[in-house]
Amino acid sequence: MADTTVSLTPEAKFELISRNLDEILGAEELKKTLAERDISLYWGTAPTGKPHVGYFVPMSKLADYLQAGCHVTVLIADIHAFLDNLKAPIELVKSRAKYYEHLVKAMLSSIGVPLDKLKFVVGSSYELTPEFSMDNYRLASIVTEHDAKKAGAEVVKQVDSPLLSGLLYPGMQALDEEYLKVDAQFGGKYLPQLGYKKRIHMMNPMVPGLQGTKMSSSDPDSKIDLLDDAKAVQKKLKKAFCEEGNIENNGVLSFVRYVLFPISHLRDGKAEFVISRPEQYGGNSTYHDFETLQQDFADKKIHPGDLKASVAAALNRVLDPIRETFASEELQKLVLEAYPPPQAKSKPAKQKKKHNKRPDHLPPKEAAETKEAAAKPAETKEEPSA
Amino acid sequence: MADTTVSLTPEAKFELISRNLDEILGAEELKKTLAERDISLYWGTAPTGKPHVGYFVPMSKLADYLQAGCHVTVLIADIHAFLDNLKAPIELVKSRAKYYEHLVKAMLSSIGVPLDKLKFVVGSSYELTPEFSMDNYRLASIVTEHDAKKAGAEVVKQVDSPLLSGLLYPGMQALDEEYLKVDAQFGGKYLPQLGYKKRIHMMNPMVPGLQGTKMSSSDPDSKIDLLDDAKAVQKKLKKAFCEEGNIENNGVLSFVRYVLFPISHLRDGKAEFVISRPEQYGGNSTYHDFETLQQDFADKKIHPGDLKASVAAALNRVLDPIRETFASEELQKLVLEAYPPPQAKSKPAKQKKKHNKRPDHLPPKEAAETKEAAAKPAETKEEPSA
Repeated sequence: MADTTVSLTPEAKFELISRNLDEILGAEELKKTLAERDISLYWGTAPTGKPHVGYFVPMSKLADYLQAGCHVTVLIADIHAFLDNLKAPIELVKSRAKYYEHLVKAMLSSIGVPLDKLKFVVGSSYELTPEFSMDNYRLASIVTEHDAKKAGAEVVKQVDSPLLSGLLYPGMQALDEEYLKVDAQFGGKYLPQLGYKKRIHMMNPMVPGLQGTKMSSSDPDSKIDLLDDAKAVQKKLKKAFCEEGNIENNGVLSFVRYVLFPISHLRDGKAEFVISRPEQYGGNSTYHDFETLQQDFADKKIHPGDLKASVAAALNRVLDPIRETFASEELQKLVLEAYPPPQAKSKPAKQKKKHNKRPDHLPPKEAAETKEAAAKPAETKEEPSA
Repeated sequence: MADTTVSLTPEAKFELISRNLDEILGAEELKKTLAERDISLYWGTAPTGKPHVGYFVPMSKLADYLQAGCHVTVLIADIHAFLDNLKAPIELVKSRAKYYEHLVKAMLSSIGVPLDKLKFVVGSSYELTPEFSMDNYRLASIVTEHDAKKAGAEVVKQVDSPLLSGLLYPGMQALDEEYLKVDAQFGGKYLPQLGYKKRIHMMNPMVPGLQGTKMSSSDPDSKIDLLDDAKAVQKKLKKAFCEEGNIENNGVLSFVRYVLFPISHLRDGKAEFVISRPEQYGGNSTYHDFETLQQDFADKKIHPGDLKASVAAALNRVLDPIRETFASEELQKLVLEAYPPPQAKSKPAKQKKKHNKRPDHLPPKEAAETKEAAAKPAETKEEPSA
């Protein structure tokens, strides 16, 4: 990533910061601040399930922020990880926090983001201090159950018997902004404050998954893990939902738009995406902007099979350095600690069932892990953000 | 209070510990432990409004516990005080915690309980530690909203727009048992635990207020403050609900039963209550047990006026040393800090209104204080306990 920060005008910085966003709360405040100085912001990620390739969407925004001179903090929100319906069971959360930190670093490196401009903070390093805890109680004494529930519904997985933790989650997220001393949060939602400054909020667009809008949590093929090998990536993309000529709810096209184009721009200094296909079907075709590619797909000039194969190839190029990093003995060990394989006896048979039922015969801990292993993010917007 | 601990049998200790209680959860466990050693227990009190004479009910139980050789901790639950609908606003809670500690000491001294056997702990001294906070989060991740709401309804004032804090309250109360390293809690409710030992719980009976079961929170006469002067005590008792011959819901009689008889026994070594009246109406009459007194009242041998005057006299004897203690300049200052008089302009006119409405024209802080000043405990059972 070329260091262009110095030469960028405040307007150009605003352009970079806001591109590909769905919404900015506090855009005027942002412009005003940028006219005076660079801003600081944080992106929070709760270390729960194994991150999938959708995480590249926020990663390319982090790259934008860094290129725009922002001071970026990545919060590894370990406490949030179990507050969200124990998506990370308490006994695994430490390992998962480490896994996420390594993974986020590897992803950012892979797309050419210099890590020396980034700060990593683990939530429990400050969320258990007396000051934070007191603020947490203060917050609980001014926020109604009703408002906490509403806020919780936006950020926490909804279940039949909601846990108290889901109501604490959004308040802590609001406090994080104060404790991380940032101007803005990437992701997250606005919550009533405690006499602390209201922050700028920047929201990702809702990006459909690679397998279309609907992902089945009982189908392991519906999620491309960041550590999946090249063949698995090809195989899963082949199964992706991507109808000829249909540009609505097309996760494969969205991935090209929000990830592959921005990444190629970051790495090579120019946006580029190559559709590779045999000469008999028109040969390779290089695109420099998403709109033209999308139009050609809409016009059926690009066959879904060729798009998928080209996306798989581009994605594998991005995943290669990550897989390489995680090939080390140390990180292999960490992966096993963070995501222990389900015990043989409790391994659920490959059943075609609609409901992700908790197996009755398992003790609570194992049941939670099995459930976790099967859980998959529904949308890129919600999932990677704490 | 005579030190009879050494000579008491485990059975006698159990008798003392359990007398005048409404309920004991874990009585068998209690007996078993007493056969081996003395138990430790705590009583929590949230420093909210100015305590009334009903607080003598738990005080006489604390005296029983001490006499039975228990290690007694009084928890001044300052954080609970604002978690319960800001009954103690955050800016006043420190002063109120000090006020309560002084007051509880003065009350116990007044009824002859030796303070050297008691330990006082302020909640915030341990409830803000990383360990406690982590346990609080762990608890929130296993307790459902529904269960927290149910538990909260039992211990927190119910309002139209319940605050999140009310859901945290009972969980923290459960954690207190673990952090105070006690065998039992006097007051409080049982809650699911975190792998910690289930405690013995001892509950006060529901004692009607001196003014009968219904206390109006807009009537300052309905509560006898511990610092009220002798005349005010007489005046308020005169107005107390106490129908001739009616022993149901008779707060004046209950006060004799649960406070004055036990206290006289503690101070003088024998239970005694004197009905003083002019010779023409039968002259003074001394009772040594509550049942006889109650029967005489039921048989209309005791006139409500005489009972009230006698209770006022006995109560004033108990309050005298407390008033004396609080006459000091230091404590007078503390009372003003803890319960600042409402500002002149915001002083509500003495209106006869049913609803305790928050004045619209006040900023939140003052409104909260005004509300607080008007709030009064409904029942002795619930109020003094954190």
